[in-house]
Amino acid sequence: MRRRPGGRSARVVAAVHEAVDALLIECGPGGFTVSDVARRAGVNPTSIYRRWGSLEAVILDVEAARLSETSPLPDTGTLRGDLLAYARSAAADIPRPGRLAFLQALISAGELTAEQRQSFLIQRAMQFQDMLDRGRERGEPTLAYTAIVDCILAPIYLRHLLGVGVAETDLELFVERSFTTKQTH
Amino acid sequence: MRRRPGGRSARVVAAVHEAVDALLIECGPGGFTVSDVARRAGVNPTSIYRRWGSLEAVILDVEAARLSETSPLPDTGTLRGDLLAYARSAAADIPRPGRLAFLQALISAGELTAEQRQSFLIQRAMQFQDMLDRGRERGEPTLAYTAIVDCILAPIYLRHLLGVGVAETDLELFVERSFTTKQTH
Repeated sequence: MRRRPGGRSARVVAAVHEAVDALLIECGPGGFTVSDVARRAGVNPTSIYRRWGSLEAVILDVEAARLSETSPLPDTGTLRGDLLAYARSAAADIPRPGRLAFLQALISAGELTAEQRQSFLIQRAMQFQDMLDRGRERGEPTLAYTAIVDCILAPIYLRHLLGVGVAETDLELFVERSFTTKQTH
Repeated sequence: MRRRPGGRSARVVAAVHEAVDALLIECGPGGFTVSDVARRAGVNPTSIYRRWGSLEAVILDVEAARLSETSPLPDTGTLRGDLLAYARSAAADIPRPGRLAFLQALISAGELTAEQRQSFLIQRAMQFQDMLDRGRERGEPTLAYTAIVDCILAPIYLRHLLGVGVAETDLELFVERSFTTKQTH
């Protein structure tokens, strides 16, 4: 998880996040540069390059933080209930304007290493893991957090892009599939 | 399925597809306009707008045709074998340079309707359906083609974008999940 120490460093991160949020809305991804972000945030461009390395990395960081902060994971009392509530909120959220910015940034950031890509996921992965740990403590099945990415998040994104609708029964099936374990044939 | 009648119309489609293929490699998506395509293909820009409506739609058409033509679906004698062979080829193919162009085009083409998006999928959906029909004729389980999109294609794309690797055991699990049916709890 990216640490957010207090003081000057935290103010730079907050200012850059605010600037990127505003520029994404006004100009869209691809419509602004690191210099634009720096000017708007009132920081030096070199501070941005030193901390993030590239514009794509800044956008990914902002989008990952937005996901973690604006879409807290549900706590319904059962793992199946939590997964279904998460699936419903993702299905409602992804078609909204601007919500593909994270996916867009992931695709545009072609030069990032696998490790850099994973670093943007860590905060969300920890939230998923908390949800899964609560289930395990109640004696429910143990899933890997990648089951949520594979079975729930991935098909909701791709169906949206392909213009294929997602009904409530689809969401129930996505949740069911996340409990599938490898069989021997 | 987009019909490709012979004669002038087929020549226009072939020339435009070739021009877009070359421009995607040389300039990347976002690096060229309909005028560039028209000039390179030796056709009138209005012919492109009349047939496809927008640059994003042309790129989607080219990428969908490429998928259908360059990645024929396997016929191994069992549905499970076909799905695993498909999963392996998608997992090997998607990380290659330029293979995210279809996803990129789907995201960039913000103004397309669900119907327009689906139209680019139809040729591939028919190939999936042939594979599933062969299985049903052999007495194997009946799946919807969306199970292939949801369980196999979607997680391979998203894991790649998130920098999460896909091992052979993951591919086997993806195939297993595509056979999951809705349970009552």
